[in-house]
Amino acid sequence: MTSPQDLYQELLAIVGRAALLESSAAVLGWDRETYMPAHGAEHRANQLSLLSGIHHQAATDDRIGELLDALKDSELNDSSEADSAVNQREIRRRYDRNCRLPRDLVEETARVTALAQHHWAEARQADDYQVFSPWLENIIRLKQEEAAVVGYGADGTPYDALLDEYEPQTTSREIADVFGRLRAKLVPLLDRIRGSERTPDASILFREYPVDQQKKFGRLAAQSIGFNFDAGRLDVAAHPFCSGTGPGDCRLTTRYDPHFFSGSFFGTLHEAGHGLYEQGLPSEAWGTPLGHSVSLGIHESQSRLWENIVGRSRAFWLHFFSQAQSFFPDALKKTSLDDFLFAINSVQPSLIRVEADEVTYNLHIMLRFDIERELIAGNLAVDDLPGAWNERFHSDFGITPDTDADGCMQDIHWSAGLFGYFPTYALGNMYASQFFDTAVDQLGDLDAQFAAGEFGSLLGWLREKIHKLGQRLPAGRLVQSVTGQPLSDEPLIRHLNERFLPLYQGA
Amino acid sequence: MTSPQDLYQELLAIVGRAALLESSAAVLGWDRETYMPAHGAEHRANQLSLLSGIHHQAATDDRIGELLDALKDSELNDSSEADSAVNQREIRRRYDRNCRLPRDLVEETARVTALAQHHWAEARQADDYQVFSPWLENIIRLKQEEAAVVGYGADGTPYDALLDEYEPQTTSREIADVFGRLRAKLVPLLDRIRGSERTPDASILFREYPVDQQKKFGRLAAQSIGFNFDAGRLDVAAHPFCSGTGPGDCRLTTRYDPHFFSGSFFGTLHEAGHGLYEQGLPSEAWGTPLGHSVSLGIHESQSRLWENIVGRSRAFWLHFFSQAQSFFPDALKKTSLDDFLFAINSVQPSLIRVEADEVTYNLHIMLRFDIERELIAGNLAVDDLPGAWNERFHSDFGITPDTDADGCMQDIHWSAGLFGYFPTYALGNMYASQFFDTAVDQLGDLDAQFAAGEFGSLLGWLREKIHKLGQRLPAGRLVQSVTGQPLSDEPLIRHLNERFLPLYQGA
Repeated sequence: MTSPQDLYQELLAIVGRAALLESSAAVLGWDRETYMPAHGAEHRANQLSLLSGIHHQAATDDRIGELLDALKDSELNDSSEADSAVNQREIRRRYDRNCRLPRDLVEETARVTALAQHHWAEARQADDYQVFSPWLENIIRLKQEEAAVVGYGADGTPYDALLDEYEPQTTSREIADVFGRLRAKLVPLLDRIRGSERTPDASILFREYPVDQQKKFGRLAAQSIGFNFDAGRLDVAAHPFCSGTGPGDCRLTTRYDPHFFSGSFFGTLHEAGHGLYEQGLPSEAWGTPLGHSVSLGIHESQSRLWENIVGRSRAFWLHFFSQAQSFFPDALKKTSLDDFLFAINSVQPSLIRVEADEVTYNLHIMLRFDIERELIAGNLAVDDLPGAWNERFHSDFGITPDTDADGCMQDIHWSAGLFGYFPTYALGNMYASQFFDTAVDQLGDLDAQFAAGEFGSLLGWLREKIHKLGQRLPAGRLVQSVTGQPLSDEPLIRHLNERFLPLYQGA
Repeated sequence: MTSPQDLYQELLAIVGRAALLESSAAVLGWDRETYMPAHGAEHRANQLSLLSGIHHQAATDDRIGELLDALKDSELNDSSEADSAVNQREIRRRYDRNCRLPRDLVEETARVTALAQHHWAEARQADDYQVFSPWLENIIRLKQEEAAVVGYGADGTPYDALLDEYEPQTTSREIADVFGRLRAKLVPLLDRIRGSERTPDASILFREYPVDQQKKFGRLAAQSIGFNFDAGRLDVAAHPFCSGTGPGDCRLTTRYDPHFFSGSFFGTLHEAGHGLYEQGLPSEAWGTPLGHSVSLGIHESQSRLWENIVGRSRAFWLHFFSQAQSFFPDALKKTSLDDFLFAINSVQPSLIRVEADEVTYNLHIMLRFDIERELIAGNLAVDDLPGAWNERFHSDFGITPDTDADGCMQDIHWSAGLFGYFPTYALGNMYASQFFDTAVDQLGDLDAQFAAGEFGSLLGWLREKIHKLGQRLPAGRLVQSVTGQPLSDEPLIRHLNERFLPLYQGA
């Protein structure tokens, strides 16, 4: 008789092969966004469609189910905390979801979204929603189909089935609740800020920032916080992202505007935060749940923590500002640290989510969360999206986008089929503040270290408490275990109050 | 009953999927040589090994054999010239070869060669043969195993089985014969050149050539001869190559030395020549033999034709030299066209194959052809390779490499398992001269067009006579059909005599 240990190794080998296929497709996806020539788009869609089909076949191999069943009552599950039990729990979860998806649907979704991203980029460039809308229509139909076959709780909605892909074991109702509480405190804070007499000189950030220098400075910052460039890259793409394509290989992208400092710099810090998580996962467990990130919300907590809580802090710039002045003498030589700090923390309703300040950012997310639920529910027609977007935008931000390119077409997500993804950004903001507060509780004040350019003890803490665990705990339990509290909007609100009220109301 | 047409479409769909997998692996291979971070090497080897295994499974699907058998006597084979008959002939050839290879061997070879290329690059950088030799030993063992299972003619050798992968239906005996004839005429030509009193000032090419300008100028030249950058790229890699990863996506690489003009420029023209072939294959037949290049020898005929016959001609530089002077004023402003032409056609025994002149180049190939046959036959031990290389090199060229990096480790091929590949370069030189002579016969003198920067009629002729045909004819029959002659060393020798004797002996 085969031992449980042998069966377990067989299981890991099968899911490991599926992961290798997924990571191969990730390289092709990265390449499509960075270096693929324009005419390669259709062929790339065919490649990715085939790979996704083969991956799906591997990930739904009957043998996975047989092995999970055979191991169920074995000694490998004596403790639910054991590595083997954790891996089985998460393999079962993915396997059950994958088995509900027919291969046709998986391949079709891969093919359509690969092409749609290409057409989205064209449509955005030309500000022509009509080029994009038939693709979006098609994708929504596919995602509705996916939601129907995957299923969702009795009191849930089809959207929950999609959300579960990115933030497992969370429902849109829970998110709507916590977003409601957050919004109730954000709006008064925003009002206080907007009523303030002090305003930053944000024009500081729109001076001449030569792209070559931005590249060097962004890379320096990413390296300083701990991103390992021997095991990663930083390239240019229309939409910034981080793709962990395997152990020793994590790819960040950003975009440069010679007349805007923040886009590339904080974008790079953001993606590097994702990259630190990927590089901190235990490489020996790669291809198994214990070597994989927990959820997109947890992933986003890492990127937003480095981008904002650390990267827009006074302590961070006590170290980096003089270097920034050397990199960009024309733009910054005559600027004071205080003026620069106020500028990078300028709160201002604006059109583009990825460039939004920390306060309004979450309102961008809530808008998307509400709109995409309506799209999936079939309550909002694709043709009506630009109008609905602009109306809601005006109501939340007091401004209306001039173009759909800067409105409902600004993000790549829907073209990539990523419905249910957006709320994880705001969850990430809340997790980030909870984690950071706990880190400070346990490590003591970190400002002196940041001011000396030392980020190792914070990174070490994140590695130990979060990165190294892989999927040992689901997001909710991880937050509870690390911080002693469930998901809460309070640390984020406290952070925002403490950061922005002094700036806007004077010390 | 299913119609032959339906069975044939099923066959094309199966081999098309296998081709799609192969092209996905090609993207990962390209990425490894261009952008992959150092620590990603091991994971990439695992990815490529798995993809090669899945490809092998697809390419040896029993259904291919069943369909070929079922179609054998159908109306689709009434004429051996019909598209369907050509595709079946070539699918059968690949299928038979693939079926002889066990999947284990295929995966092991993919994994080992992926890692070995990485270690070769390290070993070459450090000039440390000991780092490379265990990998080479392993690869030779795998290739011997491959030769044994693939098999070869009764009067052939194991090497023939490997050669057949790159130049189908050619034997090492045939190549040894034609190389012998070529050598017998090359050596006296080289002696005449070396005995000449006229010598070029090759130092022209070793002046200051800023890398950014080299990039722009190389790109301009590639574009001018017809390479479509909307469907292709040009990047930097340690070893120049061209990878056709699918219709609309063909990738060239080169390398830049700020103190050497020829390496990147002629390297780019060379790879662009390969790229023109790939871009000229009928994209609607992609994934079938009719959409695939004939052989590496034919491929090389295209690259060497553009690099040398066109790219080092006076007519070409009548157009490009003034532009070169604008791109590199410091290096070339005071140089005459005649001096520049003589410099780029300098004949000089030298260490590095890819930088060799047209005359000695073929001797570099013959050396490799002889040595790799000895390695595969087991007559030359891996430990003895550096000594054997240096000895033969001295005997052929009168000089000895100072380092193994510039000696037996200079080429990537053996680390990539490409035994049997080298002779196709010299075949390519011979084919190129045969094709070009025929083009001139049929189109009239092309010099005036080249001097006006027009390369379209030559490219159009190559497209029509060679590129568009895919694998319709095997290499030998293609040359016969296009030029009216079988493979011959004479046009090449005539070309070399006509180009180099006037330069070296005066007009």
